[in-house]
Amino acid sequence: MSDAVYRDPTAPTEARVRDLLARMTLREKVGQLNQRMYGWDAYRRTPDGGFELTEALHAETDRFEGLGALYGLQRADAWSGVDHGNGPGAQDGAALAELVQRHVVGRSRLGIPALFVEEVPHGLMALDGTVLPVNLAVGAGWDPALYERAAAHAAAELRARGGHVALVSALDIARDPRWGRTEECFGEDPYLAARLTEALVRGAQGPGEDFAPDKAPVVLKHFAGQGATVGGRNSAESELGWRELHEIHLPAARAGVRAGAAAVMAAYNEVDGMPCSGNRALLTGLLREEWGFDGLVMADGLAVDRLARITGDKTSAGALALNSGVDLSLWDEGFTHLEEAVERGLVEESVLDAAVARVLRLKFRLGLFEPQRTTCPAPAGGAELSKDVARAAVTLLRNDGVLPVGAHVSRIAVLGPQAATTAHQSGDYTAPQRPGTGSSVLDGLRRLAPPGLDIRHAPGCSLTGDDLSGIPEAIAQAAASDLAVLVLGGSSARTPETVFDANGAALTAVSEMTCGEGVDLAGLRLGDAQYALLDAVVATGTPTAVVLVQGRPHLVPDTAPALLSAWYPGPWGGEAIAEVLLGLAEPAGRLPVSVPRSAAQLPVYYNHKDTEYGGYADESAEPRYSFGHGLSYTSFAYGEPRLTGSAVEVDVTNTGQRYGRSVVQVYLRRLIAPTWPRTLELCAFEGVGLAPGERRTVTVPLAGLGGTVEIRVAASAREALRARGQSFTAPDDTPL
Amino acid sequence: MSDAVYRDPTAPTEARVRDLLARMTLREKVGQLNQRMYGWDAYRRTPDGGFELTEALHAETDRFEGLGALYGLQRADAWSGVDHGNGPGAQDGAALAELVQRHVVGRSRLGIPALFVEEVPHGLMALDGTVLPVNLAVGAGWDPALYERAAAHAAAELRARGGHVALVSALDIARDPRWGRTEECFGEDPYLAARLTEALVRGAQGPGEDFAPDKAPVVLKHFAGQGATVGGRNSAESELGWRELHEIHLPAARAGVRAGAAAVMAAYNEVDGMPCSGNRALLTGLLREEWGFDGLVMADGLAVDRLARITGDKTSAGALALNSGVDLSLWDEGFTHLEEAVERGLVEESVLDAAVARVLRLKFRLGLFEPQRTTCPAPAGGAELSKDVARAAVTLLRNDGVLPVGAHVSRIAVLGPQAATTAHQSGDYTAPQRPGTGSSVLDGLRRLAPPGLDIRHAPGCSLTGDDLSGIPEAIAQAAASDLAVLVLGGSSARTPETVFDANGAALTAVSEMTCGEGVDLAGLRLGDAQYALLDAVVATGTPTAVVLVQGRPHLVPDTAPALLSAWYPGPWGGEAIAEVLLGLAEPAGRLPVSVPRSAAQLPVYYNHKDTEYGGYADESAEPRYSFGHGLSYTSFAYGEPRLTGSAVEVDVTNTGQRYGRSVVQVYLRRLIAPTWPRTLELCAFEGVGLAPGERRTVTVPLAGLGGTVEIRVAASAREALRARGQSFTAPDDTPL
Repeated sequence: MSDAVYRDPTAPTEARVRDLLARMTLREKVGQLNQRMYGWDAYRRTPDGGFELTEALHAETDRFEGLGALYGLQRADAWSGVDHGNGPGAQDGAALAELVQRHVVGRSRLGIPALFVEEVPHGLMALDGTVLPVNLAVGAGWDPALYERAAAHAAAELRARGGHVALVSALDIARDPRWGRTEECFGEDPYLAARLTEALVRGAQGPGEDFAPDKAPVVLKHFAGQGATVGGRNSAESELGWRELHEIHLPAARAGVRAGAAAVMAAYNEVDGMPCSGNRALLTGLLREEWGFDGLVMADGLAVDRLARITGDKTSAGALALNSGVDLSLWDEGFTHLEEAVERGLVEESVLDAAVARVLRLKFRLGLFEPQRTTCPAPAGGAELSKDVARAAVTLLRNDGVLPVGAHVSRIAVLGPQAATTAHQSGDYTAPQRPGTGSSVLDGLRRLAPPGLDIRHAPGCSLTGDDLSGIPEAIAQAAASDLAVLVLGGSSARTPETVFDANGAALTAVSEMTCGEGVDLAGLRLGDAQYALLDAVVATGTPTAVVLVQGRPHLVPDTAPALLSAWYPGPWGGEAIAEVLLGLAEPAGRLPVSVPRSAAQLPVYYNHKDTEYGGYADESAEPRYSFGHGLSYTSFAYGEPRLTGSAVEVDVTNTGQRYGRSVVQVYLRRLIAPTWPRTLELCAFEGVGLAPGERRTVTVPLAGLGGTVEIRVAASAREALRARGQSFTAPDDTPL
Repeated sequence: MSDAVYRDPTAPTEARVRDLLARMTLREKVGQLNQRMYGWDAYRRTPDGGFELTEALHAETDRFEGLGALYGLQRADAWSGVDHGNGPGAQDGAALAELVQRHVVGRSRLGIPALFVEEVPHGLMALDGTVLPVNLAVGAGWDPALYERAAAHAAAELRARGGHVALVSALDIARDPRWGRTEECFGEDPYLAARLTEALVRGAQGPGEDFAPDKAPVVLKHFAGQGATVGGRNSAESELGWRELHEIHLPAARAGVRAGAAAVMAAYNEVDGMPCSGNRALLTGLLREEWGFDGLVMADGLAVDRLARITGDKTSAGALALNSGVDLSLWDEGFTHLEEAVERGLVEESVLDAAVARVLRLKFRLGLFEPQRTTCPAPAGGAELSKDVARAAVTLLRNDGVLPVGAHVSRIAVLGPQAATTAHQSGDYTAPQRPGTGSSVLDGLRRLAPPGLDIRHAPGCSLTGDDLSGIPEAIAQAAASDLAVLVLGGSSARTPETVFDANGAALTAVSEMTCGEGVDLAGLRLGDAQYALLDAVVATGTPTAVVLVQGRPHLVPDTAPALLSAWYPGPWGGEAIAEVLLGLAEPAGRLPVSVPRSAAQLPVYYNHKDTEYGGYADESAEPRYSFGHGLSYTSFAYGEPRLTGSAVEVDVTNTGQRYGRSVVQVYLRRLIAPTWPRTLELCAFEGVGLAPGERRTVTVPLAGLGGTVEIRVAASAREALRARGQSFTAPDDTPL
């Protein structure tokens, strides 16, 4: 067999796939489509500090004489129960992967290796993995180049640990902040999400068909429309129509596919009547046939088995998913019965073969069949990169002269339940951190403040609950200071007390979780005591800057003179926040989501259709803070936009006294259109750093504008509503 | 011309239409498609008490040498400025119509009469018209036969006044109670709405092709999906998909078309990208071609002109609407330019001819070309019928032994801003009422209470605002009584202070309006003072029954031992409510909408898809009161449902001590299905009145059940969730 084509590294990939497929039994094929095991059930730490493989792994590899894919071998969190005491870290993760792979290959008659698939929603979710700010923070950064570097780092970490495939949230669009997974979205806008999704694919996968040793195929999550589920309820139905899906929820996927994404994950939710995992119109008609996607489609966890609700049993559920376009399952029973499905005639073997070919192709592209392949060293500089992303995301929403901290300030009271802890700065899925990792806001201020600046601290209250007993101390600290920095927020930190659903979503928030998968929030409120603390601190009369550490826009009244959102900035976020507070860095973030006034006025996204409704009788229909909004410590002036061929030019001047970064946002209004247009659509953006007094002409290319449109350049969607526009009729080429 | 076929009453209608059409100029044809004038601009009262025609009417009939249709000749309300001092009433409305018609016919070369189109959302909205309870109350009655009689009455009143065509809300499904027009919906359920829409068509139109003198063609409003606009915002976009549209928003229209509805109105909103008035897939592909509808399609007011937003000008907007399937415009400029549109080649004259034929056909079916046609006398008994509908709608949501008023009660405090006025008992569109019309709750209780029962009153507060000055008096009254009846609620009453949009929707609620067209409400709250009044009255310890007079489910805490909703019960509703409070009538209403706990948990409709979401971390996702819920003064037991062929049988027993009416609700769960099913779907219902101890077998026919389903019989959707079901596999005939 040593002369088999599929073993020849010089043979074309397609020939190797065809050759291997032709040698496989039906059972072996079915094995390749299954990803049933939880990775942490595959190993056990031995008394001598090594790892041994479990009976569970043996049983699984016995069953299909090999293993298609293994999920979460490196995953560590409260759900998996993996921590520094029993799980693989930076030193031994790669060895564990090698141990498992040797077993899998040995068990496979044809020597087929397994794919190791890991969660990489914001960095590698494994012990010693570098935690990055969540996607919502990435969205606030409006900086695809920076995110591309972060994605490259995460991919290299994954490969250095023996992992292969990265599961990354990218496609969900944050249309309802009640949804607990809002933190995993790049924001509410399809264009911004598309640019960041491209950056992700470029950064993680690199160029070319085969993956470099430090590059990893990404599974773009989730396809499609998961951000539009009814009521912001996790994995509930989406009622939206095909056009709305195309205009809002598909552009990021389209961009990712164009950028060469290796895989997408079919979402839990349905789209107008059919769950994505059983939705042939979506997975085959649109994705493969219309878009020409030739990569892998993975189902979300247990999403195949859910189809039994309408098919009657799990075997036919598996058949429906495979026939619809799912190639690889996750934890499901349904795909284990595909042999029976073929025998019962529910599935054509040719359909199954095509799915197997996609799995094998990815393994060849990763070089997994080459025994002497180069391994990737662990990349350096993760903490700095994570902090760079965090710094870019700090969004100054309001500033009545309080920030940056002035020279007259001699004492700062750093208050609030988020002030002195890093425990809640990272998003959902985060692995346990080694003690001492990262910095809280208090840490950051203490480290960076000029000598002589007196920094005091009191937590005031907890994140959740209504215990007000800590408030008097906080008031005393505030009253005795020149400035109060009040760090409030939410949490997606899973503690051991959290109860989990079968797919790892949090079932009950016995912890302090107010965000994350399964933690949907009707009222968008912080814990009650945080509001009491805010009122009490503001009432002292001490100028107060509120910092929000959050995974969604929570409701916070505008009573303090300064308000920042740092989103979940990751472990080193405290220092990034401190830099901005102290004026060592500029507040560069811009809102990737509209911030509502209340949950009663939802939805508030800026890119609604251009209809004439006048708002509610009891409340404005407009958000409190607009998409794209974010203040600077300096000021900018924009000239009239000029259209030159396929670009818009605008002069941007720093009219203030400090360096600053303006995000030039180009919005489109469609004037003559075949369907009803939106009031505004973001169609281009570019960040530009300017010294005081500096003017620069920013040229933003516009791709594929068709029809009669108007272009407006502004610093936020709300400002674009008031901005003068330039109308023009473009040739009717590729629509945006 | 006297021997023209179109003038021959014995000729077939189609022949008369063809003949007339062949004689018409393009300009005359275009005139038939226009309904541009507001009817109240067509006349002026003369000093001698008669009417004269205005220059505006002359100009309009000059323009197209006739008049296609005239809107609102009899309309009277704050917007039109018509009242008893200047408008047509019961005595002279018919004469005014005759005066206008004589002018129109005389101005028309071919003697073509105009259609007189009037608002009949809940009774004829004209001076002296009988106001019926709003549709939401009709939905609460679950009694199509009763509503059929009410619709027949309204049609006869319309015809007796010289009107022809009734605009009636029927098709909007109440999916978001924030929408101000929720009151115009039969509720959230497509099946209930479909049965009531059929009743409406039967009652108003009668059988046969030609309309009897007391029957009127109905324009079913609105087609389609208007109940699903984003955020409950009036005429905003609906994002929903084709399947959701079909399952929830189209069944009422389908049923109305099957029942023979003469016309539908194209809605303002868009459906997945295209406003209904320009939506050819909807108006032509679905309605005409798939459903075979051969009636008239009217546009909503100014909806055609709105299309200029995407076409660039009103002429092309008119062309788009006509080409999409709109036959008759309302107030628009766009349709006045159809001659130009034909000349510019934007519209084929054959398309225009087809629309004109539909208008003419309706005129022939109404007998308008026959000079000696029978006129309809004004029908009697309107007030009683209105009260019957109101009585059937009173929905008892909660009753901790307080109701009906017991013999031990010797003094009742009748409190609240709705207690002693009829001004807010009717819904939007209501014409000014003559003083003394109807009865408030206080009136009703005083009239019907047993002798010796002392009835006191204090309003406590206003409907809106936070003036608490009246609360002490109300507390005193409550404290001194054995029972407090606290009548709270909202209002859709337009006062002269209300500012209107061009289409008559209220622009600003300077009145006490908290509901109605254009009055969308984010928070669903009553005025602040009403909550303070509720708290204060309950705190007296006097048993309290809260009565809600409302056009949508407002948020009211469950602090009082009894809670009823009477919806907007119409002028005589106070007496109907009093009958129920006193036990002279049974509370027969059942919720046609789910009542939310808060606006933050919307949507809460019962017939969501069968997905596994677990609710919000901070609030249940379930409504406070379930669709279908409504208590009785007696109790009922349901046996196990039995399936016999195409019907379900269930034994219902009155297990209590009083007569009562149970609404047997049959819910469906689809088990094996081609698309994702809902948790429950109402598929049949029947009201049954039973004496104490009486048992009856109720047989409910099931139409067109296909596939494997489960049937559950219960007294509400929530109870159906817990009920034992009967599964069966039906032959795959017409889907439900």
